[in-house]
Amino acid sequence: MTQKRWAYEDMVEGMVLDLGSRVITADEIIEFASEFDNQPMHLDEQAGRESLLGGLAASGWHSCAIYMRMLCDAMISDSTAQGAPGVDFVKWRRPVLAGDRLSGRCTVVSRRLSQSRPGLGLVLARHEMSNQHGDVVLEMQNTVMMLTRRDR
Amino acid sequence: MTQKRWAYEDMVEGMVLDLGSRVITADEIIEFASEFDNQPMHLDEQAGRESLLGGLAASGWHSCAIYMRMLCDAMISDSTAQGAPGVDFVKWRRPVLAGDRLSGRCTVVSRRLSQSRPGLGLVLARHEMSNQHGDVVLEMQNTVMMLTRRDR
Repeated sequence: MTQKRWAYEDMVEGMVLDLGSRVITADEIIEFASEFDNQPMHLDEQAGRESLLGGLAASGWHSCAIYMRMLCDAMISDSTAQGAPGVDFVKWRRPVLAGDRLSGRCTVVSRRLSQSRPGLGLVLARHEMSNQHGDVVLEMQNTVMMLTRRDR
Repeated sequence: MTQKRWAYEDMVEGMVLDLGSRVITADEIIEFASEFDNQPMHLDEQAGRESLLGGLAASGWHSCAIYMRMLCDAMISDSTAQGAPGVDFVKWRRPVLAGDRLSGRCTVVSRRLSQSRPGLGLVLARHEMSNQHGDVVLEMQNTVMMLTRRDR
């Protein structure tokens, strides 16, 4: 039996995990973008204002990474999760701007046991991050592999 | 007329952009994971070997971010690109391990002009990153918004 709090069996269809919230700062946006996505609207307030994004805005990949950390802290780190083969879709619905407070929410859509690997389950999860205005900024869906309690 | 090298008109269907290559180090993998995806297999060699990934492996989001930087350096930074509304799919096909040399390749699948915004084009692009063994580690597809030369 695993000692982890979250195993495959705990991921009940329809379950909603509140991932809490955090503020994203201009410095963080610029630091991430400098390394991974050095487009002007992610590096400079003025360039951001002149872009479609309307202000200094986080790289979409930065939004994904911030959500991932929220999911780790709320669930993955104390779970039997074994990674994921990919992401079904990513929608950057609205710009993430410096100073925004971001809230994460993960919903279990469905689950099934792996046919090929005993003790492994596949959890289809819907991911959503919103800003302080209640606008959804990020939507994703993917399948997370998780061990069952039984076969540990 | 834009002074940028790459505008919508340059993104010809079937065109392949070679994004060059770079090595990913253990330190980088651990640094990214410590901030954004602190699962054991992304933080520790031993834990990685015991996981499905088979070694100290980069977070999937780190792979995406590294690809993004390659695309910026090869094209986006000298282009009329205006961001992207999302990603159609992300496939983490194989683990990205410490010491791997990663090569990026971007293929233009199709393109069309925006119906609603004159001067804006939508470029459907296929993204691929491979390791030194020629194995594809990352596959993605998305639509990149780019200004046309004409309406600048």
